[in-house]
Amino acid sequence: MHDRPSDITKIHFVASEAPEAQAAFERLTARYGQVRPEEAEVIVALGGDGLMLQTLHQHMCHSVPIYGMNRGSIGFLMNEYHEDDLLERLEQAEMSVIHPLRMKVRDRESVTHEALAINEVSIFRLTYQAAKLRILVDGQLRMDEMMCDGVLVATPAGSTAYNLSVYGPILPINAPLLALTPISPFRPRRWRGALLSNEAHVRIEVLEPEKRPVAAVADHTEFRHAVRVDVHEARSIGLKLMFDPGHALDERILAEQFRY
Amino acid sequence: MHDRPSDITKIHFVASEAPEAQAAFERLTARYGQVRPEEAEVIVALGGDGLMLQTLHQHMCHSVPIYGMNRGSIGFLMNEYHEDDLLERLEQAEMSVIHPLRMKVRDRESVTHEALAINEVSIFRLTYQAAKLRILVDGQLRMDEMMCDGVLVATPAGSTAYNLSVYGPILPINAPLLALTPISPFRPRRWRGALLSNEAHVRIEVLEPEKRPVAAVADHTEFRHAVRVDVHEARSIGLKLMFDPGHALDERILAEQFRY
Amino acid sequence: MHDRPSDITKIHFVASEAPEAQAAFERLTARYGQVRPEEAEVIVALGGDGLMLQTLHQHMCHSVPIYGMNRGSIGFLMNEYHEDDLLERLEQAEMSVIHPLRMKVRDRESVTHEALAINEVSIFRLTYQAAKLRILVDGQLRMDEMMCDGVLVATPAGSTAYNLSVYGPILPINAPLLALTPISPFRPRRWRGALLSNEAHVRIEVLEPEKRPVAAVADHTEFRHAVRVDVHEARSIGLKLMFDPGHALDERILAEQFRY
Amino acid sequence: MHDRPSDITKIHFVASEAPEAQAAFERLTARYGQVRPEEAEVIVALGGDGLMLQTLHQHMCHSVPIYGMNRGSIGFLMNEYHEDDLLERLEQAEMSVIHPLRMKVRDRESVTHEALAINEVSIFRLTYQAAKLRILVDGQLRMDEMMCDGVLVATPAGSTAYNLSVYGPILPINAPLLALTPISPFRPRRWRGALLSNEAHVRIEVLEPEKRPVAAVADHTEFRHAVRVDVHEARSIGLKLMFDPGHALDERILAEQFRY
Repeated sequence: MHDRPSDITKIHFVASEAPEAQAAFERLTARYGQVRPEEAEVIVALGGDGLMLQTLHQHMCHSVPIYGMNRGSIGFLMNEYHEDDLLERLEQAEMSVIHPLRMKVRDRESVTHEALAINEVSIFRLTYQAAKLRILVDGQLRMDEMMCDGVLVATPAGSTAYNLSVYGPILPINAPLLALTPISPFRPRRWRGALLSNEAHVRIEVLEPEKRPVAAVADHTEFRHAVRVDVHEARSIGLKLMFDPGHALDERILAEQFRY
Repeated sequence: MHDRPSDITKIHFVASEAPEAQAAFERLTARYGQVRPEEAEVIVALGGDGLMLQTLHQHMCHSVPIYGMNRGSIGFLMNEYHEDDLLERLEQAEMSVIHPLRMKVRDRESVTHEALAINEVSIFRLTYQAAKLRILVDGQLRMDEMMCDGVLVATPAGSTAYNLSVYGPILPINAPLLALTPISPFRPRRWRGALLSNEAHVRIEVLEPEKRPVAAVADHTEFRHAVRVDVHEARSIGLKLMFDPGHALDERILAEQFRY
Repeated sequence: MHDRPSDITKIHFVASEAPEAQAAFERLTARYGQVRPEEAEVIVALGGDGLMLQTLHQHMCHSVPIYGMNRGSIGFLMNEYHEDDLLERLEQAEMSVIHPLRMKVRDRESVTHEALAINEVSIFRLTYQAAKLRILVDGQLRMDEMMCDGVLVATPAGSTAYNLSVYGPILPINAPLLALTPISPFRPRRWRGALLSNEAHVRIEVLEPEKRPVAAVADHTEFRHAVRVDVHEARSIGLKLMFDPGHALDERILAEQFRY
Repeated sequence: MHDRPSDITKIHFVASEAPEAQAAFERLTARYGQVRPEEAEVIVALGGDGLMLQTLHQHMCHSVPIYGMNRGSIGFLMNEYHEDDLLERLEQAEMSVIHPLRMKVRDRESVTHEALAINEVSIFRLTYQAAKLRILVDGQLRMDEMMCDGVLVATPAGSTAYNLSVYGPILPINAPLLALTPISPFRPRRWRGALLSNEAHVRIEVLEPEKRPVAAVADHTEFRHAVRVDVHEARSIGLKLMFDPGHALDERILAEQFRY
């Protein structure tokens, strides 16, 4: 009831480089103050989805919730921008918890790289040569050989991002699923992808990696010359996004499915 | 081994009208006997998916499991046909439990009809006039007006049936989802449908039902001149399908997603 | 200007049954007169695309051009509705000439039926049983067996109608092509159809017509229990549609391709 | 009849680097001789479609016909490989003449580059930032702003290549059309592309080229940091491909449309 921890006063603001995000940052820090991220009860991100992804990545190890206000071109993860009533909105906001994907990449030097992805892990050709990929799910061979621009594994939160552009389905935010979606498949040319359990371990093996080099990308973190990529959901990490009531991520994704 | 309850001896066989299904029925009842359905420990269905659907509908109130063997043209729900080893196969079979959809239809005489669907509930125009439909999910208007041949709501088990023909996504058998998929949408012409929680209540309202009559169909049970159709999952009813090890419904649907 | 033949004075008006079309009919015939169709220099159709199709069919044997004004729900073939300036608009209108399809249907009684289609010839299942169809192009077998709701052959003019709802491509009005597009294909489930030369002769053979009856439909003219359907363009028939400058059919179809 | 110019004796062989192409080159030149390209009546290309494209580009200014034999992984443009009867096959081969696209690229330094494309001209993002493109056809703005991986313009011959991977339609080889197809469109997310007259001039303008750099690619010739790309068919250039009877390009493309 009372003395609820949600009497938020300590805010850390971040902003994208866009002039209108920077201007908002000036006005809002002047009005509501600015604490260091370690002390913050909430991080308020000013920009578009690009900034939100970046902020989520940067604060993945803390458990501090993040509230975005849209000052960018695409704001699927952002609330409407208003300067007034920020404290009230933060107190009334609804929380959505999402889990990232963990990507492990082995490159042609046999070095292993690791990164987390909130939206998607994608594999993409590095030259005009089409990629030739093999797909295993839970250790079982499922796609022997696919020639394509690439393939991606998307979370429900990411299903409205790159996955949507390559004609993958939008997933309800609470669906225990991952979308495995081909990018410009050439052979087999009509494969549309698969919906997998969120407990699935997906392995992508790169065939002919010298002739057909690919990059493995976790959101925007890229590793070149991958030869094998493993992807699974990192259930132990929970990212907290805050949304104005009636506009939480489940409603946003549901509404997005009925847009046309 | 010892007295496990799975020492099945009481089988009720059913068969489709196809000659090869009838011939199989003769040979198998001669060999394994034939008990009445009320006494059966398992029902063995001989035919294709059409017969399986029919058998599931007929025995929905019992809890007796059903094992199909393929003697038809489409056998997604059927095991391979062999005459030998039937008892051993039944004992080793894996069980998949699926829930049907409950459809409630109000027609133009204000009469209410009810039926269950294992695969899908579909709404379809009765004349060459396109249907004009409105869609609500959990009481909330989601699609104001769609001109189309129709729309369907599919279960995961049904996602590989009519839903697949109209370009809906295949759902893993355990995904707590329903697929809402338009059939030949004219306006909005690019809407691809939505994946909904399996707890969703879907209501389809028929606009201009006199000029644009539609039928509501639960699997093959049709009610004409529907004006309102309500659909939700009947969680209280669990249908038991038996599959040979390694070929249970989850694996079948997963494999189906990688077919091309 | 001077006595160009385009000094149109003899108009035959037709209208759909919709109240606003009927009201327009009253006002326009009062203002511009009404001649019999045989005497008309132009037919002015008041309604939507449905009326336009009907009018085109009714006057297919004359060579009188038709000018539509939109008083209906879908007006792709219609000009904007204004009551003033009609004579000037008719004189300045641009003409698009389109060719219909000729459909020849053989039914289960071996009776042959014939009809013309401006938009499309479609084959569609008559019961819940999926149709099983075979497709030949210019006498050559191209699709051995397709299980589906049906299939259609669309003209460029019709490519924005039913063809578009079933995900067929929009064709430029002058493209010498026909679109052959499956309707809810079940097997082969990923076939997307073909673009054929407008000189192609398409034959659809209905397999298992007793178990799986289908109708053959030319626009809205339906023949039930078809067992074989032949379709080709009737080049000898040219239908004249009139459009306000800058809004002729080629521009409309091009613009339609960039809608989303 | 007799002394037809088609008594081919002067062949120039080319081969890809693949071992089996190189081995074929050794055997065939030993058997049929090898003349310089300038003297050749026909060029025989040994490899896959990649080599064929390269060979067509290299000899675009001559009018010498090219006959391919498949020693590669994808051989849509290639005939079957046999070592015997080559002269007879060359004499009986059917000719398909295709026209390339001419691409003019202006880059961020205002330098203009030009290249020809047999399959397609594609525009593609150079970094993870989505491209933002504007599309004009014949000087008229048709797509104000599209966020995407890119876009392509394909010839009928190229419609079965990259265009097919990004879900563009296959075009009959003689259709006077070009396919304009989006690559992973993010906004407008459901635009499927357009079929344009082969006389169309397509202009792609790159928006925010500093933040969102793109490459313009004609088949495999790439120019980076394009800010404007113009594409139209080069009718004056006719490339001659030779195919065994019954397997010419029109038949190949028609057959490809019925594959699934």
